[in-house]
Amino acid sequence: MFSNDYLSGCHPIVLDAIVQSNMEQTAGYGKDDYCERARLKIKEKLQKKDADIHFLVGGTQTNKIVIETFLRPYQGVIAVETGHIATHETGAIEATGHKVLTIPEINGKLTAKQLEAYYEAECHNHMHEHMVSPGMVYISHPTELGTVYTREELKAIYEVCQKAGWPLFVDGARLGYVLNERISDITLADLAKYTDAFYIGGTKCGAMMGEAAVIMNPHYQKDFRSMIKRGGGLLAKGRLLGIQFDCLFSDHLYEDICYEAVRYALQIKKAFEEKGIQFLVDSTTNQQFPIVPDELAKELQLAFGFSLWEKVDEKNTALRYCTSWATTPNEVLELIGFIHSL
Amino acid sequence: MFSNDYLSGCHPIVLDAIVQSNMEQTAGYGKDDYCERARLKIKEKLQKKDADIHFLVGGTQTNKIVIETFLRPYQGVIAVETGHIATHETGAIEATGHKVLTIPEINGKLTAKQLEAYYEAECHNHMHEHMVSPGMVYISHPTELGTVYTREELKAIYEVCQKAGWPLFVDGARLGYVLNERISDITLADLAKYTDAFYIGGTKCGAMMGEAAVIMNPHYQKDFRSMIKRGGGLLAKGRLLGIQFDCLFSDHLYEDICYEAVRYALQIKKAFEEKGIQFLVDSTTNQQFPIVPDELAKELQLAFGFSLWEKVDEKNTALRYCTSWATTPNEVLELIGFIHSL
Amino acid sequence: MFSNDYLSGCHPIVLDAIVQSNMEQTAGYGKDDYCERARLKIKEKLQKKDADIHFLVGGTQTNKIVIETFLRPYQGVIAVETGHIATHETGAIEATGHKVLTIPEINGKLTAKQLEAYYEAECHNHMHEHMVSPGMVYISHPTELGTVYTREELKAIYEVCQKAGWPLFVDGARLGYVLNERISDITLADLAKYTDAFYIGGTKCGAMMGEAAVIMNPHYQKDFRSMIKRGGGLLAKGRLLGIQFDCLFSDHLYEDICYEAVRYALQIKKAFEEKGIQFLVDSTTNQQFPIVPDELAKELQLAFGFSLWEKVDEKNTALRYCTSWATTPNEVLELIGFIHSL
Amino acid sequence: MFSNDYLSGCHPIVLDAIVQSNMEQTAGYGKDDYCERARLKIKEKLQKKDADIHFLVGGTQTNKIVIETFLRPYQGVIAVETGHIATHETGAIEATGHKVLTIPEINGKLTAKQLEAYYEAECHNHMHEHMVSPGMVYISHPTELGTVYTREELKAIYEVCQKAGWPLFVDGARLGYVLNERISDITLADLAKYTDAFYIGGTKCGAMMGEAAVIMNPHYQKDFRSMIKRGGGLLAKGRLLGIQFDCLFSDHLYEDICYEAVRYALQIKKAFEEKGIQFLVDSTTNQQFPIVPDELAKELQLAFGFSLWEKVDEKNTALRYCTSWATTPNEVLELIGFIHSL
Repeated sequence: MFSNDYLSGCHPIVLDAIVQSNMEQTAGYGKDDYCERARLKIKEKLQKKDADIHFLVGGTQTNKIVIETFLRPYQGVIAVETGHIATHETGAIEATGHKVLTIPEINGKLTAKQLEAYYEAECHNHMHEHMVSPGMVYISHPTELGTVYTREELKAIYEVCQKAGWPLFVDGARLGYVLNERISDITLADLAKYTDAFYIGGTKCGAMMGEAAVIMNPHYQKDFRSMIKRGGGLLAKGRLLGIQFDCLFSDHLYEDICYEAVRYALQIKKAFEEKGIQFLVDSTTNQQFPIVPDELAKELQLAFGFSLWEKVDEKNTALRYCTSWATTPNEVLELIGFIHSL
Repeated sequence: MFSNDYLSGCHPIVLDAIVQSNMEQTAGYGKDDYCERARLKIKEKLQKKDADIHFLVGGTQTNKIVIETFLRPYQGVIAVETGHIATHETGAIEATGHKVLTIPEINGKLTAKQLEAYYEAECHNHMHEHMVSPGMVYISHPTELGTVYTREELKAIYEVCQKAGWPLFVDGARLGYVLNERISDITLADLAKYTDAFYIGGTKCGAMMGEAAVIMNPHYQKDFRSMIKRGGGLLAKGRLLGIQFDCLFSDHLYEDICYEAVRYALQIKKAFEEKGIQFLVDSTTNQQFPIVPDELAKELQLAFGFSLWEKVDEKNTALRYCTSWATTPNEVLELIGFIHSL
Repeated sequence: MFSNDYLSGCHPIVLDAIVQSNMEQTAGYGKDDYCERARLKIKEKLQKKDADIHFLVGGTQTNKIVIETFLRPYQGVIAVETGHIATHETGAIEATGHKVLTIPEINGKLTAKQLEAYYEAECHNHMHEHMVSPGMVYISHPTELGTVYTREELKAIYEVCQKAGWPLFVDGARLGYVLNERISDITLADLAKYTDAFYIGGTKCGAMMGEAAVIMNPHYQKDFRSMIKRGGGLLAKGRLLGIQFDCLFSDHLYEDICYEAVRYALQIKKAFEEKGIQFLVDSTTNQQFPIVPDELAKELQLAFGFSLWEKVDEKNTALRYCTSWATTPNEVLELIGFIHSL
Repeated sequence: MFSNDYLSGCHPIVLDAIVQSNMEQTAGYGKDDYCERARLKIKEKLQKKDADIHFLVGGTQTNKIVIETFLRPYQGVIAVETGHIATHETGAIEATGHKVLTIPEINGKLTAKQLEAYYEAECHNHMHEHMVSPGMVYISHPTELGTVYTREELKAIYEVCQKAGWPLFVDGARLGYVLNERISDITLADLAKYTDAFYIGGTKCGAMMGEAAVIMNPHYQKDFRSMIKRGGGLLAKGRLLGIQFDCLFSDHLYEDICYEAVRYALQIKKAFEEKGIQFLVDSTTNQQFPIVPDELAKELQLAFGFSLWEKVDEKNTALRYCTSWATTPNEVLELIGFIHSL
């Protein structure tokens, strides 16, 4: 129930749009009107007309295709050690010939300071041609640990990237969960301004499946569709993705349903806090990582779903509770009641 | 209207199943009950319990992941020159480090005789280690040109493959359109028997999207899920694919809706024939390739959709008319009337 | 004896230089004075100070590293069907993720007209993103069949390349054999002017091993050493290559020893011609391809080495006779005598 | 002078053999008698007739080709963080599509205990298909830090590998420096027994260039030459490598000249120790890593070559002093005198 944010299908409004359009006949591969309409709606929020927007099916696919597009063969991508591309993509990045150059995470995040130091070291690296050269930077917002960047932090990272000549790519698999000023001051327009590319996650944020890749840097826009096709990511009935993003970007649906999920997550967080339970990090989004004694973990397991995140020490384990647009008030109330009763 | 077989969404029965299950919560990545049920139904038709069945999103993805699984790094895949992997996948196979070794097609097909000759030549190739070694064989059934293999032909190809030590992989993007004894005597059980792997196409045969890869050779079954994930093909909400194949493989839906489409295609074929129009090949499936004078092509364009296939000579062009499960009797009647009126 | 042009070690002058310098201690990886001196001598002949010159060990290595440097992931390299990269490199190009896009050869050569037609077709290719895009052009001078380009032909090819935005790369594995105005009017300075990169072959032209890659297009010069290292082509004792090219580019050694070999080859050609024997192509360089009845081939085999090139028909085979800097007048006389005696 | 072990050409005996054979004509690509003779001599030392031995030009090349041969696409290679493939090969391994899975080094070495723990974790990894699977193990003997394995340690590692189904590959770029019982009890026969493959380094151990890859596991012997050609590592005049290994494996030349170098290194080590200087690790081979104050480093720089290895802290730096077969007694005496005078 709380084990991840892709347990259910899609938001009913999205589903309805798919159903309504089912028998229509449209051009394939994302060249239909639905995709075009979705692109226009997204561009409006980006406040950039020259954004290049493509709909792909999943996150690993999107990450690998963008990264392969951005790097020269001898370059690698900088990411934190907990970055999705560094851990849970079965070597999809290496499959494209590139190393993931990892930096220790700080609350799941990369800092401009770390990046600056990396850049300085690289400038004086006398082994340059014997080593993988950093060629771009990858961060997630929110991070794998549910933490968020501020606009200042993003801007600072982007500035180092600009100086170093490294394009910046933001993985937004859960972007919906931070598009509210109470959670992060970074808007879609900021992402358009301070990145070279990012993606707007659909799969975990109300869609059946699908991610919208936004390529801002014109240098990488050319023939990106060829990259998608080669990478096995060009959906024949591309309109399915366009329809979903068209819905999600109408009437603030995307932001609203995700923010609701965050509110639930913060209620759960509070319930654990009131029991004196510590957290792995101070997450303010839809993922919460309470650290509980192993016995308590077993007890919790009897009642509600969660993910085992990692053993923290001999006797304690960090759990992950995840809410989504599909989480109901009753589910949350029940869980909170159970926590109080422990 | 007749330009391709992925113009519409999915068959209403499939859609209904997706709608009904939308709010259920299930495990991700194909580990849900719907996928399991679909696997069982397919296995029943295969008459093989040890088949390894995986649901992927699209055809290019499926082709590249299976082929990369089957080949050693220095090997290539044998295909006819018109094979989908040789022409229309933007180098997806080469992206995995492998060459497509092409052989001229005969009515879109590869023959056992050609393959035997290729094998003989390879056995006496004194440049062996300077050349890409053939490592597997890829055919499509039906072919890109709508032609079909007979069981004898398939068996003969498989026998050469067995002798040569080359696994045989059949691309079944349009498999539904040949699963009827009036079209081809090859059954699913035959495919299970005479191939090392094949896939059952969903995207072009009634599903919203999705292909069912069937790995028969146990040698390649191990860790195929890791290959899918690495290739960007593991759908988070994998059940979406399972639900669709569960429907399609209930009550002969898959075979029935596709056969209906073939019947329409043959009616269109007949109408062209009655006008004395020749065809690129003698297709007996849902794709028909009449060769028409360029002026006539323009006239046809005013009324109904089709694809421009290829210029045959200075003055004539081969067109492709495609039917699908979504084609209606009225559309066909109208087109036939138009042809008669020419 | 005439089976190929890499039977012997290296020219005695080159050997002597290696011996003389053996106990010197120099920096590794091509950063020594010998390499620098060789680069300067080559640049002088190129009449270009901004050429970027790198010494690699072998041809396949050089081809694969240059091609991977020039292409974007979704692009392929245009070559004739008999091109070395298309036939005899065991998929080294595909190993870097790229398709070799072949065009039929005309006397082993590619023509500007063919290339123009390819470009035109590409401009109107409505399947663009579903197909590998041509991204560069590869030719060999002399070709695999010993034929040569003229300056006009090279210039015309380069002009199409410029228009199409395709860098031009010339494989010069046997370049020494054409650097004489009696054979081809293309000079090293012309290659510097009308290509984006080329390589000067050492292995088959007097060196023990080694090829000098010349990158003219500044866009691809950056970090080429990283590409070499990644491709496994950066020789630790790089000076070994520099010493050899330093020798070969002193006192016209490179051109002179190769031209001598061509003169021998033309004598052998004349002897066959006088016997009324036909040739596969009209080669004017160190490789000659007489077509002889199979029985005669057996007879020739008793006396001198050659390569079996290809069966021309049921009863005749094309042979390859190859001379090199190491061929002696006596060997040639003996062979000619034998031919006359047939 | 002491900055690395590839400053000079090759041992005079090796050079002489190259000179003597220069004008001979032999088959190419390692199919000559010299290579065959060298293979026999090596096999004798291995006490294994079924070893498969190939001569390649350099270490990075050898590592990447062996590793690509051993792994399935979704697998990675386990190595310590200081492993050459993890640091100084510009992503050559990633270029073949594989991740290097790093484990912290203990004195430059990997322990069986670490490996056992890694294996245990992998066995219980519920994220298996979302992560790169370990597929083989890479160690260096001696290590990058000059430390050595004992036979017991090697055997213990091999046993874990056997249990886990991971082939073991030993990088022997400096193998000559440990083939003496006073340094390590591991013999060539032990390597043949307790590994799936290893290579005998020539470049740093008396040869001009060249490494002898020894494939013990029959499963990987098939078509290894195709892998070499594809990887750009098949030298046209392959005999050059055979001649060198033939010499090096006659009359204990390989072992003797390397042991001499180690003796010099240990004298240098002792001189530093007598000055109370600490070392980065306790190396017993031809590389020594004294940690000296930065000012002293500057002083040393005036007199003799060395490599700056790494900053140890604000004020101290680890240097690398390297001896080789080319080091002379006088050079060593002079350096020692200088150290004493500090």
